[in-house]
Amino acid sequence: MKPKMNLPGILVIHGPNLNMLGKREPEIYGATTLDEVNAGLGEKGQSLGLQVDTFQSNHEGAIVDRIQAALGCYQGLIINPAAFTHTSIAIRDALLLLKIPIVEIHLSNIYKREPFRHKSMIADIALGQISGMGVFGYTLALEALANVVKPVDNA
Amino acid sequence: MKPKMNLPGILVIHGPNLNMLGKREPEIYGATTLDEVNAGLGEKGQSLGLQVDTFQSNHEGAIVDRIQAALGCYQGLIINPAAFTHTSIAIRDALLLLKIPIVEIHLSNIYKREPFRHKSMIADIALGQISGMGVFGYTLALEALANVVKPVDNA
Amino acid sequence: MKPKMNLPGILVIHGPNLNMLGKREPEIYGATTLDEVNAGLGEKGQSLGLQVDTFQSNHEGAIVDRIQAALGCYQGLIINPAAFTHTSIAIRDALLLLKIPIVEIHLSNIYKREPFRHKSMIADIALGQISGMGVFGYTLALEALANVVKPVDNA
Amino acid sequence: MKPKMNLPGILVIHGPNLNMLGKREPEIYGATTLDEVNAGLGEKGQSLGLQVDTFQSNHEGAIVDRIQAALGCYQGLIINPAAFTHTSIAIRDALLLLKIPIVEIHLSNIYKREPFRHKSMIADIALGQISGMGVFGYTLALEALANVVKPVDNA
Amino acid sequence: MKPKMNLPGILVIHGPNLNMLGKREPEIYGATTLDEVNAGLGEKGQSLGLQVDTFQSNHEGAIVDRIQAALGCYQGLIINPAAFTHTSIAIRDALLLLKIPIVEIHLSNIYKREPFRHKSMIADIALGQISGMGVFGYTLALEALANVVKPVDNA
Amino acid sequence: MKPKMNLPGILVIHGPNLNMLGKREPEIYGATTLDEVNAGLGEKGQSLGLQVDTFQSNHEGAIVDRIQAALGCYQGLIINPAAFTHTSIAIRDALLLLKIPIVEIHLSNIYKREPFRHKSMIADIALGQISGMGVFGYTLALEALANVVKPVDNA
Amino acid sequence: MKPKMNLPGILVIHGPNLNMLGKREPEIYGATTLDEVNAGLGEKGQSLGLQVDTFQSNHEGAIVDRIQAALGCYQGLIINPAAFTHTSIAIRDALLLLKIPIVEIHLSNIYKREPFRHKSMIADIALGQISGMGVFGYTLALEALANVVKPVDNA
Amino acid sequence: MKPKMNLPGILVIHGPNLNMLGKREPEIYGATTLDEVNAGLGEKGQSLGLQVDTFQSNHEGAIVDRIQAALGCYQGLIINPAAFTHTSIAIRDALLLLKIPIVEIHLSNIYKREPFRHKSMIADIALGQISGMGVFGYTLALEALANVVKPVDNA
Amino acid sequence: MKPKMNLPGILVIHGPNLNMLGKREPEIYGATTLDEVNAGLGEKGQSLGLQVDTFQSNHEGAIVDRIQAALGCYQGLIINPAAFTHTSIAIRDALLLLKIPIVEIHLSNIYKREPFRHKSMIADIALGQISGMGVFGYTLALEALANVVKPVDNA
Amino acid sequence: MKPKMNLPGILVIHGPNLNMLGKREPEIYGATTLDEVNAGLGEKGQSLGLQVDTFQSNHEGAIVDRIQAALGCYQGLIINPAAFTHTSIAIRDALLLLKIPIVEIHLSNIYKREPFRHKSMIADIALGQISGMGVFGYTLALEALANVVKPVDNA
Amino acid sequence: MKPKMNLPGILVIHGPNLNMLGKREPEIYGATTLDEVNAGLGEKGQSLGLQVDTFQSNHEGAIVDRIQAALGCYQGLIINPAAFTHTSIAIRDALLLLKIPIVEIHLSNIYKREPFRHKSMIADIALGQISGMGVFGYTLALEALANVVKPVDNA
Amino acid sequence: MKPKMNLPGILVIHGPNLNMLGKREPEIYGATTLDEVNAGLGEKGQSLGLQVDTFQSNHEGAIVDRIQAALGCYQGLIINPAAFTHTSIAIRDALLLLKIPIVEIHLSNIYKREPFRHKSMIADIALGQISGMGVFGYTLALEALANVVKPVDNA
Repeated sequence: MKPKMNLPGILVIHGPNLNMLGKREPEIYGATTLDEVNAGLGEKGQSLGLQVDTFQSNHEGAIVDRIQAALGCYQGLIINPAAFTHTSIAIRDALLLLKIPIVEIHLSNIYKREPFRHKSMIADIALGQISGMGVFGYTLALEALANVVKPVDNA
Repeated sequence: MKPKMNLPGILVIHGPNLNMLGKREPEIYGATTLDEVNAGLGEKGQSLGLQVDTFQSNHEGAIVDRIQAALGCYQGLIINPAAFTHTSIAIRDALLLLKIPIVEIHLSNIYKREPFRHKSMIADIALGQISGMGVFGYTLALEALANVVKPVDNA
Repeated sequence: MKPKMNLPGILVIHGPNLNMLGKREPEIYGATTLDEVNAGLGEKGQSLGLQVDTFQSNHEGAIVDRIQAALGCYQGLIINPAAFTHTSIAIRDALLLLKIPIVEIHLSNIYKREPFRHKSMIADIALGQISGMGVFGYTLALEALANVVKPVDNA
Repeated sequence: MKPKMNLPGILVIHGPNLNMLGKREPEIYGATTLDEVNAGLGEKGQSLGLQVDTFQSNHEGAIVDRIQAALGCYQGLIINPAAFTHTSIAIRDALLLLKIPIVEIHLSNIYKREPFRHKSMIADIALGQISGMGVFGYTLALEALANVVKPVDNA
Repeated sequence: MKPKMNLPGILVIHGPNLNMLGKREPEIYGATTLDEVNAGLGEKGQSLGLQVDTFQSNHEGAIVDRIQAALGCYQGLIINPAAFTHTSIAIRDALLLLKIPIVEIHLSNIYKREPFRHKSMIADIALGQISGMGVFGYTLALEALANVVKPVDNA
Repeated sequence: MKPKMNLPGILVIHGPNLNMLGKREPEIYGATTLDEVNAGLGEKGQSLGLQVDTFQSNHEGAIVDRIQAALGCYQGLIINPAAFTHTSIAIRDALLLLKIPIVEIHLSNIYKREPFRHKSMIADIALGQISGMGVFGYTLALEALANVVKPVDNA
Repeated sequence: MKPKMNLPGILVIHGPNLNMLGKREPEIYGATTLDEVNAGLGEKGQSLGLQVDTFQSNHEGAIVDRIQAALGCYQGLIINPAAFTHTSIAIRDALLLLKIPIVEIHLSNIYKREPFRHKSMIADIALGQISGMGVFGYTLALEALANVVKPVDNA
Repeated sequence: MKPKMNLPGILVIHGPNLNMLGKREPEIYGATTLDEVNAGLGEKGQSLGLQVDTFQSNHEGAIVDRIQAALGCYQGLIINPAAFTHTSIAIRDALLLLKIPIVEIHLSNIYKREPFRHKSMIADIALGQISGMGVFGYTLALEALANVVKPVDNA
Repeated sequence: MKPKMNLPGILVIHGPNLNMLGKREPEIYGATTLDEVNAGLGEKGQSLGLQVDTFQSNHEGAIVDRIQAALGCYQGLIINPAAFTHTSIAIRDALLLLKIPIVEIHLSNIYKREPFRHKSMIADIALGQISGMGVFGYTLALEALANVVKPVDNA
Repeated sequence: MKPKMNLPGILVIHGPNLNMLGKREPEIYGATTLDEVNAGLGEKGQSLGLQVDTFQSNHEGAIVDRIQAALGCYQGLIINPAAFTHTSIAIRDALLLLKIPIVEIHLSNIYKREPFRHKSMIADIALGQISGMGVFGYTLALEALANVVKPVDNA
Repeated sequence: MKPKMNLPGILVIHGPNLNMLGKREPEIYGATTLDEVNAGLGEKGQSLGLQVDTFQSNHEGAIVDRIQAALGCYQGLIINPAAFTHTSIAIRDALLLLKIPIVEIHLSNIYKREPFRHKSMIADIALGQISGMGVFGYTLALEALANVVKPVDNA
Repeated sequence: MKPKMNLPGILVIHGPNLNMLGKREPEIYGATTLDEVNAGLGEKGQSLGLQVDTFQSNHEGAIVDRIQAALGCYQGLIINPAAFTHTSIAIRDALLLLKIPIVEIHLSNIYKREPFRHKSMIADIALGQISGMGVFGYTLALEALANVVKPVDNA
């Protein structure tokens, strides 16, 4: 799972139900699918000199597994934990192992939604948080990481 | 106070104590002063086709006055309410009058700080929130607004 | 996974530990196994002109996957989320995608049990809730759905 | 007030403002009046071999009186306590005297409404609860009681 | 109970213990009795072109009955729910049926009294609230209703 | 309702469901009926030189009416508010009018029961409270009042 | 700032953002501007034999200054603290110095709005509160003060 | 410490600061000293056929010691835990060892005092509670115990 | 999965992220890997006459599956639920099925960590809890179970 | 604003409404005016070898401005934040910039007043707090600072 | 225990663990022992014309005893209740008996420590509170008392 | 109180009511007395190369005294604070002075008992906690300490 090129690697993790992006209610969430988001992140990454890998799962355990597998392989991580934002201590604990900068992102403004969505189990261990900007928020998150990640010299 | 050029205008408001940016504890907050931040926003704005105005005050009332004066003059607003984030209903009410997209920004990750800083009186009326990215967060906020603000044709 | 006949389809989802039904403590929960419950639902469905599919898992992610797969395939859904009732925002989010009537059911009266079982993450997005009626509650839930689901004409 | 026939008796109690059912806002609550609900319960009861008596009052004390008068006369009780659901300890205490199975019913889904409607003073002493099914919920409640009430032999 | 004249009708409801007004502790509550208050409201109503009916009860159920009976008969309602302010969901539900402007009034300033008097079950469904003005508050409430009630043409 | 003899009068008020005393579950509450309790209070009163009147109702409003009617007629009052203990501000307000010593009594130890029974709306306006002593508590309450009520000289 | 005539003086204070009244969203708040409100209060005052002065500021400190300057100059005060209602202890403390009757007014019904608007820092030190009546509430407040303010004899 | 006579023994425990009874503020607490209270309890006990021992301490540990020493020596216990009422789990635990009826007594009405005095660590393990009756409460407590304690036959 | 030998069987379950033990931050958690812990438990078990099986997963559902599979196969269970300690009702429900003694163990002292780690969903259904002793806690837990588990005679 | 002499400088800040000291209710707060307090502090400072500057404002923003202007000019700061004690995060943030010992003072005992006055936003960043000693508290605060401030050698 | 000289007497009470002052962690708490503190208070007292007695105990009961013994013997009291600050109602009750000015002192700033140390059971009955000034706080407390205690004339 | 031999010393402290161990309710707590527990700990200690001293008191102050006397004398401490677990800040403060590893032990599972027993004032300053294992828990605690205490060389 290690990025193959000599570019600094960024892992992007999408939480539960994000695989439905662009397939349901395009009038609300837009017509962009998760595949298109991921492709866009890859291109944006290249322009920033970053190698981008992506992962989506509806299973908390699978996300924990993926984060553990990322140990030592990436310079930064972007996570949209979706529903797990508010409840998953296991993802928090896995992220704590990584010791790399993490950007938490939410498509919607979580403060406009139900009170149980106002609390994040991730926020205080992340570098920062971006919310409410829709899929453009992923681009901002990548820029934010590019701003703190040092280029690696693998030659 | 209306932007003079035909570019869409963005107002950037800095709350209390942000005038000290770069003058105290550069090892923590960096050596960039607020003037430099504002200059950078102006340049970034130009590259995005946006006219950027800035304002800072330690006085809640002065910020309310400035927001009211912005009525009908701008296409978007960026606010770092600093200490007023957590207490100012007056600023919230003034922002509600504007009916333009608002991006809330915090230099530090407010979820790593005292519990009274976790609650924002602005978050649920903003388009979105960016926190923890330092002064680079202003750049991201400007990009986010550029992404939603339509170019104006003043000819 | 689409129901094959021209009858309106109902999906029944059983949450964690319900696979043990009838196998443990029959003096408390009765001797009816989950297979027998499912068979009974199939028969009752036929008498009501409904096609019934069932699913059980101890994995939150598998339940989310199954709900997503149900998109566009069913006219109604019955869910006994068991332990996930009180904690799973991911299941809530998946159910929100379906836009079909949902009946939440609990075998026991959750208000006679520990306080953490009094709160449901599903209740406010369901059509209604039935609790405390034992396995007979499934029959009631199916009748309730039959009462609101319109017959489909697939001819 | 004792049921005259040799059938097991079921008492149905309707709380405050339910006398207005079908008379106001038929587009919301339907056009069925309480008299029609009661008539339907009588017929459904007969088909299930149950004698059904009904009672409505806007007075908490009158409901307590009626429950006390039911002592030893019925095999089951259905109650839609309406506004008294959330506040009446007196009705709870009266119901506790009866020692017969009780089904609590709400026309609307109380978890979609104001927070003060989420708490029931009756739920933990009832056999079970049915909510959100409209007037059809009464039919389900009667079936649920029929399922647990043993036929009486008064010959 | 319908007002006999062609004037817009206003119903005034006094809650529990208000029948003792002027009979106990005149040094505190003044020497004006409830009869005198009602007479004054009648006169004030006439000067405003309003027909005023009044009702007092110590029985929550009787107040609910009276509100139901008012359906379609009045253009506005003034209520001093007294002790029921803080607990009666039944009165709230009855008032919700009316669909006419309601003014809530309290003789004393409820925010100077015990904390359990600070919460009103009526306030958020009323047009507005007047408290602390003594019996003069009834006059103000009538003026407030006159300001929003359209004259009726019964000719 | 005024006591006819020249002895100081004590009014004893029994709240909802206390009319069932001794008729249900004698193994728990004992076999003494409310009539026997009242008769015993009359005799005990005579031995203490007190005239005792009693009243029971399941209707909060009727209890408020009875308390208002007691104005100026009694030297003391004993109240077992039962279920109304925890919710009735109307009874509290009526009792506040009396300006005579009040003893609150509970047959059971309310602190051994559900949390919602731990809070009394009467306790802080009573002289004192006696709980957990069963029907003997009435006798103690009468003694307590006899200890503070001055003999009246009606000659 | 002392009223020049021999009439009892009333000071009316408008809190933050009220200077925008009538200038924004007339379909919601009406087309009446604050100047028109103030003019109307002057006229109404004259008809009641009261001298009315008015003041508006978006600055909490300026409102505190104005209240202090009112010491000994007015017989009553009307305040619509707007956003400061819920947070300003400084205004509360200044008002406490005045020792004159104060009427708190809100244009909207604050109990229909966000929970943080339900708490007033002023309510328990005011004579009373009027909310939800729109700009007509100012007229009612003036009448309420006229009812308690004694005419002054400055001759 | 075992009672010497063949009468059922009652231990009376007075908590901290009760040794000052009658010595300070007689206008509030009366002029009766603790010695006089104890003497009165002894006499009252004799008239009821009970042997009464008393104990006072300002030391929680000493009270625990005394309760432990009472094991097997008494048929009932009266305790006025005073300040320890609200905090001492150690006294609660010691009382739990005794397995005899316990009456908790407070001279003042604890519900009229500071909120921290409303919670008792003893109430739910006592037979019952008497509060607000002053020193006469001890007499009532003794009567209450006499009512439940069976005479012992030590012959 | 049944232990093959005639020794009483103990199942040891390790929750999420414990597979990383000894692989990350050995200076904090020590250099012992989970494999070594498991090996050590096997040896310790033998010395105590116990057969030890172990299981680790990052998936809540997999842990529920494993517990269900343990039904009737073990005399005791040790569980370090890690992040699931604080949130998993599903694991609680599965453990409740087993009816064997359970020891809950935490490597770190959970009371020194974030408040959300202070609450355990398992603690009140376990025999007991051991925390803060590092990997040595597993040895203590095994001894504790050995102390209560009766030797089995499978001959 | 820098102290002109070679003495260590102390800045004393008085919050809102303290300018009224001695001018209102001298029977409560004493007849000492703020000018007299400041003069006394100057004299006391001289006797302690300290240069004392003072500042009062009703404007939170002005106090923030003044604290910022004090950067690098003083060895210690005394602040009586008055009403801002409980709400001003902006003042807290400004004080945090100073990095000099701060003594918080309150004339009255804030724990005897309304609950909202019990919480200080300043207390945990101050050296210490003095409350309840009236204007003499300023003298004590100055002594406390003199005890920790080192003499400066500006020669 | 009465002070022997004709000077006004001040009693200083030190709570639990303060006997270890200066003996442990001198780098934190300083090297001053409690004996030295007491000696310093004696000298400072003399210079202020006050007779100072001191007392320390780790036993709550002993402190209550000592306070009771102080009745009528002192003109003022200084107490550092240490750990008992937050829990001892018994000490509060004893202090309430004294009717002399009390100054509460804490060596450390209790608002910088664990939340359970922020609440004082003494603060609202004391004249005032001094915290965070180390042992110098005792000197300030003595000065504060000297400022309010009138010289006694015992000649 | 220093251990006489050259072995590392362990102090074991038993809180209130533990002196009754084995003397009351042996069917619940077992027949082992505290003396037998202490003897067993001595023997176990010897086998582990540890010198064990024990102490029990019902007096919080005596326990504080004993802990202070332990300063510099022991390598580890085991404490079963019993009722003081939940309330004693004084014991916490004394333990904080010791700077040696502390193991907190509870015979019963405190999470199965009343909610006020779920909070420990000691847990976050201890090395770890063992609960629910009965008197065997002392043995485990001693082993846990042996695992961290280094042998001392007193030769």
